[in-house]
Amino acid sequence: MLRSATQLWYAEAGTPNERHHFAVKRVLYSRETPFQTCAILDTYQYGKMLVIDGRTQSAEADEYIYHESLVHPALMAHPAPQRVLIIGGGEGATLREVLRHRSIERVVMVDIDRELVEQCEKLLPEWHRGAFRDPRVELVFSDGQAFIADHHDRFDVVILDVCDALEDGPALPLYTEAFYRRAKSRLTESGLLVVQAMELSGVEHADHVTVHRTLRPLFHHVSSYATFIPSFWSSWGFIVAGDTINVGGFLAAAVDERLEQRGLAAALAYYDGHAHVHMFELPRDVRRILNEGMASSG
Amino acid sequence: MLRSATQLWYAEAGTPNERHHFAVKRVLYSRETPFQTCAILDTYQYGKMLVIDGRTQSAEADEYIYHESLVHPALMAHPAPQRVLIIGGGEGATLREVLRHRSIERVVMVDIDRELVEQCEKLLPEWHRGAFRDPRVELVFSDGQAFIADHHDRFDVVILDVCDALEDGPALPLYTEAFYRRAKSRLTESGLLVVQAMELSGVEHADHVTVHRTLRPLFHHVSSYATFIPSFWSSWGFIVAGDTINVGGFLAAAVDERLEQRGLAAALAYYDGHAHVHMFELPRDVRRILNEGMASSG
Amino acid sequence: MLRSATQLWYAEAGTPNERHHFAVKRVLYSRETPFQTCAILDTYQYGKMLVIDGRTQSAEADEYIYHESLVHPALMAHPAPQRVLIIGGGEGATLREVLRHRSIERVVMVDIDRELVEQCEKLLPEWHRGAFRDPRVELVFSDGQAFIADHHDRFDVVILDVCDALEDGPALPLYTEAFYRRAKSRLTESGLLVVQAMELSGVEHADHVTVHRTLRPLFHHVSSYATFIPSFWSSWGFIVAGDTINVGGFLAAAVDERLEQRGLAAALAYYDGHAHVHMFELPRDVRRILNEGMASSG
Amino acid sequence: MLRSATQLWYAEAGTPNERHHFAVKRVLYSRETPFQTCAILDTYQYGKMLVIDGRTQSAEADEYIYHESLVHPALMAHPAPQRVLIIGGGEGATLREVLRHRSIERVVMVDIDRELVEQCEKLLPEWHRGAFRDPRVELVFSDGQAFIADHHDRFDVVILDVCDALEDGPALPLYTEAFYRRAKSRLTESGLLVVQAMELSGVEHADHVTVHRTLRPLFHHVSSYATFIPSFWSSWGFIVAGDTINVGGFLAAAVDERLEQRGLAAALAYYDGHAHVHMFELPRDVRRILNEGMASSG
Repeated sequence: MLRSATQLWYAEAGTPNERHHFAVKRVLYSRETPFQTCAILDTYQYGKMLVIDGRTQSAEADEYIYHESLVHPALMAHPAPQRVLIIGGGEGATLREVLRHRSIERVVMVDIDRELVEQCEKLLPEWHRGAFRDPRVELVFSDGQAFIADHHDRFDVVILDVCDALEDGPALPLYTEAFYRRAKSRLTESGLLVVQAMELSGVEHADHVTVHRTLRPLFHHVSSYATFIPSFWSSWGFIVAGDTINVGGFLAAAVDERLEQRGLAAALAYYDGHAHVHMFELPRDVRRILNEGMASSG
Repeated sequence: MLRSATQLWYAEAGTPNERHHFAVKRVLYSRETPFQTCAILDTYQYGKMLVIDGRTQSAEADEYIYHESLVHPALMAHPAPQRVLIIGGGEGATLREVLRHRSIERVVMVDIDRELVEQCEKLLPEWHRGAFRDPRVELVFSDGQAFIADHHDRFDVVILDVCDALEDGPALPLYTEAFYRRAKSRLTESGLLVVQAMELSGVEHADHVTVHRTLRPLFHHVSSYATFIPSFWSSWGFIVAGDTINVGGFLAAAVDERLEQRGLAAALAYYDGHAHVHMFELPRDVRRILNEGMASSG
Repeated sequence: MLRSATQLWYAEAGTPNERHHFAVKRVLYSRETPFQTCAILDTYQYGKMLVIDGRTQSAEADEYIYHESLVHPALMAHPAPQRVLIIGGGEGATLREVLRHRSIERVVMVDIDRELVEQCEKLLPEWHRGAFRDPRVELVFSDGQAFIADHHDRFDVVILDVCDALEDGPALPLYTEAFYRRAKSRLTESGLLVVQAMELSGVEHADHVTVHRTLRPLFHHVSSYATFIPSFWSSWGFIVAGDTINVGGFLAAAVDERLEQRGLAAALAYYDGHAHVHMFELPRDVRRILNEGMASSG
Repeated sequence: MLRSATQLWYAEAGTPNERHHFAVKRVLYSRETPFQTCAILDTYQYGKMLVIDGRTQSAEADEYIYHESLVHPALMAHPAPQRVLIIGGGEGATLREVLRHRSIERVVMVDIDRELVEQCEKLLPEWHRGAFRDPRVELVFSDGQAFIADHHDRFDVVILDVCDALEDGPALPLYTEAFYRRAKSRLTESGLLVVQAMELSGVEHADHVTVHRTLRPLFHHVSSYATFIPSFWSSWGFIVAGDTINVGGFLAAAVDERLEQRGLAAALAYYDGHAHVHMFELPRDVRRILNEGMASSG
């Protein structure tokens, strides 16, 4: 037998009938904060990973796919986004992507977990790249629900970048119709709401569909979109909703033109006109699932 | 402690730093044939699965995604496909999809492993749905390389639906420039070659890129496309190549019109105009990877 | 990447904080019978294995250790065992070991699961070696509890070779004081009761201790003994109890003399005087655990 | 789905056909030192664990079994041990057990890895319990081979408590006949050599047998002994060798008398006369394996 390194594996919590394991080089941080169980792991395959309540949040190797997909469709589609509210987004990478848009004047980021955000600032500089210190940023440590209830400022874009809707998780109240209604009331007239919305494929889709159907009656335009995130081993869904702007209706050329105007054409690694079309043009099986039981299709 | 069923897990062979496990209900078939190690497993998550040489080939729950993606872009793009050659495709589902096109007069399917094909016919009726017995089909048990060398018939579409390019696997010679050249010489002038081409994402892409670069100098139009296959836990790549038809250039409406003309609009579960665009419009990171080191971009 | 065989793993049910996996070559049998979930697996490390309700019962490579340890201490200690009752013991190997003693005139084996016993006879000939067909054997398919209630024959040795005391398992009633009392009433005056009695080590011992304490008040001599079973990855406990014979009191030389007299000295692979002493001389930590809360030590 | 903690698993390196996994609460230390890859993990099942080169060295829950078994048979058997040499033993628990014997005047402990020993002193106080600071102890950071070559002091007992004989490991030269010869030359006339000697059971024994056979011609008395270590999931072997004292020949009563005389009767958790007999009286299969191909049996 040969020597070997200590074999540590991170087993992502999932269905009882699948197991996904990542080989771990080092555990950089691991704590039960007052709100959630957190870890920052250094893995062999995907570099550093943030894990909350047993589930991968983002990974060094492909966080650009997740964060660009979450942020840019809505910000691109808005003609001049100035004020953005982020609920969650502890890694600081959602913030980083929002700040790329030059029209941005103010970003409020509300995260419930101060300890986690401080660890991310310290241990994940590749994610935030200094975004927390940008003068346009206001960082608030608070429950997203309470913040929305108490603050009456209006935003061009509200981004819900919170953990999955686990049955006993802190993010669950942020997946309710009541919360979405309140979030909508904080939007400007042409404002957009973006939600990270869990797995979306022909085989796995139940949670996404629940969010989609909850949002559908509240906004004139509700578009699901999806992209493959390697470290999640799945096709990840997002939803963008608004009353005046139809984000899903942008053609590739229009997207590229906007990015060009804003000086972002060469800056992004994942998102551009083609990626936009890739994400919003969903295959037949997924569209059928989203539209089942709805009066009209999106 | 409580009673439990016998816990059997299928561990897909992959990188040494990831492990993917599927809970297995029953082993329906497991043999070392003269060519490869095969198993047909009944899994809790994805139903029946065909495994060759340690890697998942297709699964009951989502084989429609794989097989529709492999077959229909090329057959849709060809104005009147009559003769098709399939190399590999043991499950019979590639055959099933090809036969949906009414213009088809003859399909030759060449698979090296008679025992495996017989087991698939017996155990995977949901895959082939009787396709092996269609009068238009000629089934040949032979090495694909030898068949191409010895037979000089010409085909409208040639589909390479073989195992991944494992270093010591029987399919390796089918991933060479020599073989692609010979396959091309069996195409009609407007003929198309389709290759199942392994993982394609911003993180995993080495094998796909090798195939793409080998094909690029041989055909006027070479298009990579990709879709997420849940049971593969990855974004799967395909390549379609031809000298006169540019499959990647079809717009959604044109695809849907063709499918309508052929009576396929309602028949397919995954593929349609939107799915076509989803698969061929690749994100910026993937396009950059495909084009690195090439004189012109695809 | 290289080809590999289909990797199948059997994961033994255990504590939530440990996982033991065995690589499986073939599944020879797998069924839910009316009583339990059964499988016979061919493993790379230990050859064939019988698995019931998710737990290993015995394995080809080391079933001799388990079955010799279960049977011979009691049968050796009895001066002339003629009639033996086995409850459970589906593999037929407990029967095989009992039949080695020439004084044996009749063995009644009572197993609840006819289907399983038939599969063992067919698939595990290395275990039973024809024992089921021995003219001294009477095979009864019945619930052990019902059999003991209805039959009033007396036996020199009663062997309880049943599954572990799982909370919802069929064997649970066979681990109660009421059952032990009834089993005792079927013993001759110098009769012995043997129980397979789950893990016994300084770290894992809760189930064994429960059985030990239940038996302690019912018999004059109650001896726990233990040996390491490689395929169980643990030190396995047994208990032998009687009113007149103290099995635990035999010295190595006395054991060897008895085996010699019975022509068994060269026949056994595991058990002899040294093995007897090895199993009954328990380390200090285990003895302390067994005696905690008891008035007198064993 | 419910929230869960970050699931981390430690997979012990073993045969390719078995996998043993321990759920990990925290990684307390993990480093590649100049000599080996080390980790100190806090596990749910066995408390803290020291892992070197992928293999468990000892665990909080049962290190007393390992260390008492390693140290006390030899020290008990020696009439008045004064000077002891330990090669390896980084946790400090071998030292701790040696120091219990009141006759001890000087213990030299030679470990190659200063960094590891310092981490053990800091993180594993339950193991060493201050032993490193005992005035009778001389701690030397050096290669065991070099130390033995350069120092000509003689010892009553030499204990080799080093990692397993991995093919490419630093401990391999310490498993050679040349080294054993040299170690013997550092013993007093009635001196004893003790070696931790890997798995020993009827199924797993190859490495142990190699050590046993290498030592057999060098000493008049060579005794293998074994005990079950729960966190190793195996029966662990040791060998004690000497020219004048036959450690394996002690009866239980003699062992207990010695321990009583030295005030150790109540101090130890695992070892006493019964445990001694348990460990040295090996079953028939193991004895046969040890004696195969040897002229005379031990």
